[in-house]
Amino acid sequence: MFQAKAYSAASADTPLAPVFIERREPGEKDVVIDIAYCGVCHSDLHAVRNDWGRTRYPIVPGHEIVGTVAAVGSGVTAWRVGQTVGVGCMVNSCGHCGACQDHEEQFCERGMTATYNSIDKYGDRTVTKGGYSTRITVNERFVLGIPAGMPLDRTAPLLCAGITTYSPLKRFSAGPGMRVGVVGLGGLGHVAVKIAKAMGAQVTVISHSEGKRVDAERLGADDFLATSTPGMFRERANSFHLLLDTVSAQHDYNEYLGLLDRGGTMVLVGMPEPSPVRASTLIDRRRQLAGSLIGGIAETQEMLDFCARHSVLCDIELIPIDQINLAYERMLKSDVRYRFVIDMQSLRNS
Amino acid sequence: MFQAKAYSAASADTPLAPVFIERREPGEKDVVIDIAYCGVCHSDLHAVRNDWGRTRYPIVPGHEIVGTVAAVGSGVTAWRVGQTVGVGCMVNSCGHCGACQDHEEQFCERGMTATYNSIDKYGDRTVTKGGYSTRITVNERFVLGIPAGMPLDRTAPLLCAGITTYSPLKRFSAGPGMRVGVVGLGGLGHVAVKIAKAMGAQVTVISHSEGKRVDAERLGADDFLATSTPGMFRERANSFHLLLDTVSAQHDYNEYLGLLDRGGTMVLVGMPEPSPVRASTLIDRRRQLAGSLIGGIAETQEMLDFCARHSVLCDIELIPIDQINLAYERMLKSDVRYRFVIDMQSLRNS
Repeated sequence: MFQAKAYSAASADTPLAPVFIERREPGEKDVVIDIAYCGVCHSDLHAVRNDWGRTRYPIVPGHEIVGTVAAVGSGVTAWRVGQTVGVGCMVNSCGHCGACQDHEEQFCERGMTATYNSIDKYGDRTVTKGGYSTRITVNERFVLGIPAGMPLDRTAPLLCAGITTYSPLKRFSAGPGMRVGVVGLGGLGHVAVKIAKAMGAQVTVISHSEGKRVDAERLGADDFLATSTPGMFRERANSFHLLLDTVSAQHDYNEYLGLLDRGGTMVLVGMPEPSPVRASTLIDRRRQLAGSLIGGIAETQEMLDFCARHSVLCDIELIPIDQINLAYERMLKSDVRYRFVIDMQSLRNS
Repeated sequence: MFQAKAYSAASADTPLAPVFIERREPGEKDVVIDIAYCGVCHSDLHAVRNDWGRTRYPIVPGHEIVGTVAAVGSGVTAWRVGQTVGVGCMVNSCGHCGACQDHEEQFCERGMTATYNSIDKYGDRTVTKGGYSTRITVNERFVLGIPAGMPLDRTAPLLCAGITTYSPLKRFSAGPGMRVGVVGLGGLGHVAVKIAKAMGAQVTVISHSEGKRVDAERLGADDFLATSTPGMFRERANSFHLLLDTVSAQHDYNEYLGLLDRGGTMVLVGMPEPSPVRASTLIDRRRQLAGSLIGGIAETQEMLDFCARHSVLCDIELIPIDQINLAYERMLKSDVRYRFVIDMQSLRNS
């Protein structure tokens, strides 16, 4: 074991505070990473506050990690000390089931190990601790290579927000001639716009109010729709091939499904409360409502390479780690454009 | 105009009764069909009783029609007098929109003309009258060829129940190695079992109670699940690639979606009341909830040819037309295995 500095919450109503945590020495297949930056995902906040009732305290969140390889185990061949690497939402899986063999480790039939707040069931059975930390030890299969030349701070959120949006955009063939709507312009939505544009699709941002029209255009969107505009859902009915729905607040799926053209699909990547679906909305134009969960490791690497090739980066607000509790308060008010990223040097220096 | 005998309802609370109706003389592209048999679809009953609030009275239902070509217009090349033909749920569409050009006339952007209770907007603007009748005049593009050797009475319901189930089974690749669940064993479900088996899939019938287990096996199903069995939804979670949901009563989509394996799809072909969908159920294994509406004319012909090749026929109860009101009462109690078909000779002789 070795020690690392981290920020941890002791309970649902305790702020994150500095602590020392134990990390395992690298096993044969492990990589130790000096963390440079860690993105702040909305699910970090939900986990810290136990919104989903599954939090194991103390918790160290963070699953949008980039840094440098500091050490490797004796059996590691894919990575070497000094390389720039990343870690996303997963740090292990069984490696043998159908999902793992299909490179969809996120759906591992025995259960993937999440980067934080997860029992390390294929390892020492401790609770995993995430990227709000100076160092992390990760199995080499779950380490991603960061392409040369990418600014690391603006790359970090791609490890979750990037793959969450890239995977369904690719699966449902976003590309030239395809009309894609991105519902919600937050951390996920703003990356979705950039990736869908880079894929060649015609992209419309669909947001509650006019407030984000200017940002949507600046991010490269071709069009903007405010759901608060009277009659919008009727006027724009049947006009999209694909909707990527990033909204976490409850909303009427039928209204949005009605925007889909024949054969179109709406993909949920947020986790809103259940909402009733009318069969006729799906049947009338052969529409689909789908879900998508991050992506496999190989696909995450593909996404990073794609983003490097197309200069897709996140719009971020870089913060020192002692501002993390304030950042959470601002996230609750959607007051961030579009992702907080922690500069981990601030933790090393503290 | 010429006259035909028909059964018609004058209002929502009037029984169907014999009348004479007017049919148009065949135009250049029209085919006149002597109707031999007409299947009795659940939607006939809903329309007659105005359950969907869209019925135009008097109504002559019926869209599972088989018969013989009695006359053809001067410009008809595809059909000749004496041929055995069928008509399904549609009798016209614009012919020019994207959907029509894609051979999905059921989604015609200007609106398809339904076989009954629909304004003949591409014709004389009268209300269409369906197959509970001795004769019908139909545009040649909407006439199907019945392959030689098919028993006509048992073929009639394929024109709606057959295509409604064939289309999604084919689209979602039902075939060898695929685990398909058919939810509900009624008029649609019993054909779905036969078609899915003929496609080579492994087929499980999922029904409310044990009552239909014997029938399911007789129809060729490999397995049977009763939703009333405690713990069934949990025990059989993640075990299907495709669910074809034919149930029209409201039910909890999440329970059924949970039966789908990674990447699986549940297709709704019934019209239940809206039911809440949990995003997590869709996201967790990348599942999809889809809808499907009959099929295009070319696909309907393909389905008929497939059923002829694989000896797929409906299980029916043949009735004279004067039993139609009684048949409706029995359908309301699900007391039919599995489709009533009207012998139209009984109307000719009356």
